[in-house]
Amino acid sequence: MSGWLAIAGLGPGDDRLVTPEVSQVLAQATDVVGYIPYVARVAPRPGLSLHPSDNRVELDRARAALEMASAGRRVVVVSSGDPGVFAMASAVFEALEGREDWQALDIRVLPGITAMLAAAAAAGAPLGHDFCCINLSDNLKPWSVIETRLRHAARADFAMAFYNPRSASRPEGFAKALTTLREECGPDRLITFARAVSTPEQRLTTVSLGEAMPEMADMRTVVIVGNSATRRVGPWVYSPRSAR
Amino acid sequence: MSGWLAIAGLGPGDDRLVTPEVSQVLAQATDVVGYIPYVARVAPRPGLSLHPSDNRVELDRARAALEMASAGRRVVVVSSGDPGVFAMASAVFEALEGREDWQALDIRVLPGITAMLAAAAAAGAPLGHDFCCINLSDNLKPWSVIETRLRHAARADFAMAFYNPRSASRPEGFAKALTTLREECGPDRLITFARAVSTPEQRLTTVSLGEAMPEMADMRTVVIVGNSATRRVGPWVYSPRSAR
Repeated sequence: MSGWLAIAGLGPGDDRLVTPEVSQVLAQATDVVGYIPYVARVAPRPGLSLHPSDNRVELDRARAALEMASAGRRVVVVSSGDPGVFAMASAVFEALEGREDWQALDIRVLPGITAMLAAAAAAGAPLGHDFCCINLSDNLKPWSVIETRLRHAARADFAMAFYNPRSASRPEGFAKALTTLREECGPDRLITFARAVSTPEQRLTTVSLGEAMPEMADMRTVVIVGNSATRRVGPWVYSPRSAR
Repeated sequence: MSGWLAIAGLGPGDDRLVTPEVSQVLAQATDVVGYIPYVARVAPRPGLSLHPSDNRVELDRARAALEMASAGRRVVVVSSGDPGVFAMASAVFEALEGREDWQALDIRVLPGITAMLAAAAAAGAPLGHDFCCINLSDNLKPWSVIETRLRHAARADFAMAFYNPRSASRPEGFAKALTTLREECGPDRLITFARAVSTPEQRLTTVSLGEAMPEMADMRTVVIVGNSATRRVGPWVYSPRSAR
């Protein structure tokens, strides 16, 4: 039997946002590997082994999955959203470094609906013009890099989507980000807090940067800052297609 | 009967990348509106009227769809990819300006797999760290804005995804973009050309910026430029999760 590894995105939470491609590969799998709450989204069935693991062990998890695939298992590494956006795909490719045996495996990445797309859709179309996407966690990069990126993004007049805006252990980062954004964009720029998008707990709040408070975000929130032309129409927020 | 409007993303081409949410809403629709090749992806059935229209008439198309929804029809505006990323959602919200009657309609945006996510998945994980997404068409903004954005994106060390890199009518823009990128990022930076991703015509090419030629892109190509740490491993390209 020939093993394989699929790195699959489960989307933001609603099962109707899981692609048929991902559902099909899960139906063929012998093993599912991932962070505890994501593995919990996969229905158990006979012949399927679930391997939930804790946060911040991405490389260990990737190596365990590759080891199983190389032993002939059909392994799916699950992420929420899209596996290529601040999720498990990069960790799996990092684990391939120096391992030519693993590089020869059948490995596929299966895209998913990443949180910013679901958040933007729920709010309207704030990412309808050029935008950027920044992970605000400073676990894997210094805060100075994040601040430099925020300033360039503002001066490029990108709309911005932020992942992992505010952890319980280091909540001060997001307050600093808001200060930087107010300096660069002024108080009237629109900012949308999209929490637990597509789940029953979904909550959407749009305010101006002047009104934004750090507590409006937590780790289940995607934050979207508009560009200089982003505006409200009726209950929605959108970025016009053109720029001057 | 109460009409509604859904703005739905069909994904990059493969039917297995259409979300169940979008399939369900198409099954309930009375009318499907969109650019000719996207409407052609919806299976005809009794009771469903298809309204294909040409490119560059986005606002007219949006208004026609809103008019039908307001007359009680169940209307789906289809885009390829995600409707909120350089597609129809912003056009529909622009059409709502000044029309309080239309603003009161039942309007939903249904996210889809946008081309850059499918392209990144096919290549590996080049968008696995902070990135930006730029429409290189200068139909709706001056080239000076695009150039400023490219320079800021490079100095922020974002990976970059480009939509509409090279039109048949104005092919010179992409050559200019490559020149700017070489100035900012040097010749060794990786660049991936992903054409017709997820379709039978899919073709992926990764080269260095020094080797990149304008003819490697056309309007069916998504181009992904790596950040300074983006690298190859085996047949894949990925951006490591950390930055210094």
